[in-house]
Amino acid sequence: MTNELTIDAPEGVPWIDFTREFDAPVAAVFNAHRDPDLVRQWLGPNGYEMDIGQWDFVSGGGYRYTHRNPEGMEFGFHGLFHTIRDDEFAIQTFEFEGAPDEVAIEFMWFEDLGDGRCRLRGRSIGRTVEGRDAMVASGMEHGMREGYERLEALVGAGSAARAGSGS
Amino acid sequence: MTNELTIDAPEGVPWIDFTREFDAPVAAVFNAHRDPDLVRQWLGPNGYEMDIGQWDFVSGGGYRYTHRNPEGMEFGFHGLFHTIRDDEFAIQTFEFEGAPDEVAIEFMWFEDLGDGRCRLRGRSIGRTVEGRDAMVASGMEHGMREGYERLEALVGAGSAARAGSGS
Repeated sequence: MTNELTIDAPEGVPWIDFTREFDAPVAAVFNAHRDPDLVRQWLGPNGYEMDIGQWDFVSGGGYRYTHRNPEGMEFGFHGLFHTIRDDEFAIQTFEFEGAPDEVAIEFMWFEDLGDGRCRLRGRSIGRTVEGRDAMVASGMEHGMREGYERLEALVGAGSAARAGSGS
Repeated sequence: MTNELTIDAPEGVPWIDFTREFDAPVAAVFNAHRDPDLVRQWLGPNGYEMDIGQWDFVSGGGYRYTHRNPEGMEFGFHGLFHTIRDDEFAIQTFEFEGAPDEVAIEFMWFEDLGDGRCRLRGRSIGRTVEGRDAMVASGMEHGMREGYERLEALVGAGSAARAGSGS
């Protein structure tokens, strides 16, 4: 795996920066963020079931979903999409309902790298440095890493190769 | 004027904190944020004309407005209301269209102080420290100060007193 997730959470500021490259066209990675039938297959840690109540990935739209972990505990999330530009850019709010009112704003840049590859860059900004630190401590990085691995398997070059091999 | 606006923009973080007390009930100050016919009368610097295209002050709603300064220059703004709780709390996104994609998230707490007084506390968090610094340098504080003075004149104890004096 060469397309590792990189996370940077500098001390004293309320944001988390992340970067991840994919062996997949930018349109495929963007579409996997737009289409709830695809989102459900990759977002979140391995072994979680995702139930999407709303997913309206357009400027001014909103979303709500729950994740259920293997022990059956449910976690709700919701937010609004401030800006969506196809194959390029997204801004959304993000609230974990277990920490009400600690709403983050998240920016995502989708960059075409040519040769069927792309880069996803993101910045998630919490209300406080302490809230950001708690989000990092919650194991967020682990869940993101597993999610993006499933996303790459879903839309990446590897998925076509596996389909071709018949395995 | 005892209810001065206080602004705090600590170095190295992307947020601005502000506080302002009003000689007005919390419900009146909240309503002046909800009702576009009132918002139009106080939001922004003195001498600006406000044209509200959308103002849907509910959770999941959105807004767009323009300010026109005395020289006729227009400035557009838009955002979404992530959370609205009556007489208590609001979270919104905020974009000045002259700096596209530099979207802030803003938290406002409306606090009842008793005796017909209230306190408004806010935190506005930009995407970068540099963007926050540019917002402060743009004269934001001046516009906020004038706006809140007009808000207090609109709904505060002083408005009733002036009406009573017939001036």
